[in-house]
Amino acid sequence: MLQSTLFKKIELCELKKIVIFGVGLIGGSVALALKKADASVQIVGMGRSQQSLQTALDLGVIDVASLDIATALKDADIVLISAPVAQTTSILSAIKPHLNSNTVVTDAGSTKGDVLVCAKQILGNQFSQFVGGHPIAGAEKSGVTAAMADLFVGKNVVLTPSPETSAQALACVNSLWKTCGAKVSQMSAETHDGIFASVSHLPHLLAFALVEDIASRPNASELFSFAASGFRDFTRIAGSHPEMWRDISLANKNALLNELTAYQAELSILKKLIENEDSHGLEALFERASVARNAWAKSKS
Amino acid sequence: MLQSTLFKKIELCELKKIVIFGVGLIGGSVALALKKADASVQIVGMGRSQQSLQTALDLGVIDVASLDIATALKDADIVLISAPVAQTTSILSAIKPHLNSNTVVTDAGSTKGDVLVCAKQILGNQFSQFVGGHPIAGAEKSGVTAAMADLFVGKNVVLTPSPETSAQALACVNSLWKTCGAKVSQMSAETHDGIFASVSHLPHLLAFALVEDIASRPNASELFSFAASGFRDFTRIAGSHPEMWRDISLANKNALLNELTAYQAELSILKKLIENEDSHGLEALFERASVARNAWAKSKS
Repeated sequence: MLQSTLFKKIELCELKKIVIFGVGLIGGSVALALKKADASVQIVGMGRSQQSLQTALDLGVIDVASLDIATALKDADIVLISAPVAQTTSILSAIKPHLNSNTVVTDAGSTKGDVLVCAKQILGNQFSQFVGGHPIAGAEKSGVTAAMADLFVGKNVVLTPSPETSAQALACVNSLWKTCGAKVSQMSAETHDGIFASVSHLPHLLAFALVEDIASRPNASELFSFAASGFRDFTRIAGSHPEMWRDISLANKNALLNELTAYQAELSILKKLIENEDSHGLEALFERASVARNAWAKSKS
Repeated sequence: MLQSTLFKKIELCELKKIVIFGVGLIGGSVALALKKADASVQIVGMGRSQQSLQTALDLGVIDVASLDIATALKDADIVLISAPVAQTTSILSAIKPHLNSNTVVTDAGSTKGDVLVCAKQILGNQFSQFVGGHPIAGAEKSGVTAAMADLFVGKNVVLTPSPETSAQALACVNSLWKTCGAKVSQMSAETHDGIFASVSHLPHLLAFALVEDIASRPNASELFSFAASGFRDFTRIAGSHPEMWRDISLANKNALLNELTAYQAELSILKKLIENEDSHGLEALFERASVARNAWAKSKS
């Protein structure tokens, strides 16, 4: 495997200072995990909201709340961008003038193709220092008050190095997430975006579409009054953050359009089975799906 | 409201003997709720499986496990059909020759239009004694061992009387479910089937379709390995019983085809918004859906 080879060649990066842009659930949990692993790591928080940085300081999640990028980036080993993805461009632009050649930059966004394009454009000849990343972890709550040191333990983190990414930078980010307890894997940004279009982005869109479909009807309140536990679970992800899902939908546009087309074709097959009253075909489809779903759930438990 | 008027006209049915066809989660829970309310009610269990009837007897859920329909139906106040819906026709046919004029028959199936057609055809001039019913309650587990006296407390039960249904029969079934602690409402079978097509049957089909879509791809195992908690909740109902959902899909064919068509139109709107990179339109749709979903969840909690 690539990562074990890398670890043979390159010594594990020594992490003395990390700068975290956006100290919310993800950034805050990375900070807590690093502190737990090594109390001497200096953690600098940066963010738009003075108040949430103060909360992060008060909670002991970060050591310093910085307002000056030049000072923050001095001697930084890693910069982690875990702010809302719409801010990635402006954060990279703000970092660029102060970025040392030995500072690694990584992110935690849900889409990777768009981030790599943006990082290449902004970081230019320092693009080799950038490693796209996506921790597959979340919680019902958001914000730094929800952060926890073990959020990433046993969870997947996908890194999406490009051919230009330096092996040193990749090894550092790998080491960062391993320290947080995560299972790290690597793939191209395109493969990543295709996988998450199908198992995450598509279900979110389907849930939003169902609620929109029902909520826009004249008898919506009657319909909702009879919705029960199946509806509750199916639509939980439709309660997600609208701005975040707008950004993901646009960032992963092509893969998501392909997914929606494939799904509509699947629904047309289902419709045809019902129209034809194809009892065997329907039962076989439901059987395949329920076996696959229950086997998956068992494998994850 | 119809039901309170009825209760003024007709004395609450005195329930001395009930015959339950299919003593599983639903039938067993009705039995336990009735016993809790009045220990003197005689509960007769009927079913295909000798073993599950013996379990029901051993657990004290039923008083008698009957093999003879004529004996079971003698002096019965109510017959509750809570067996898998595919058995409804044969159960009604078996009951008919032994059905007294003062015995009420009801069911617990998820679709009502088909059951009413079938009951009218089989019961003929005794169709007025039949009341279609649908308790909106379930649990992760099925079978009599999962039955509990409070399964229906605070849950919706929908009754679907037809113009031919006798007021006495309707009042009896109303009383049965009120005794179980349920909130009883009434509507036409057509209205019922339309409502449940949208808030229950459609989401089930969408979840089955997503899992089938993913499971049938060459890289299914890779895709499943990155599926996380959002996928878990969204697809929980895709783990449901294939035979049951085959029957529901066919029984509620027309309403379900309408729902699938409306949903495909909703997906086409969403695709168009993404294709056009309509940032405002996307966020507005996600915002409406997330507000509606979270308001609904709050109202149910």
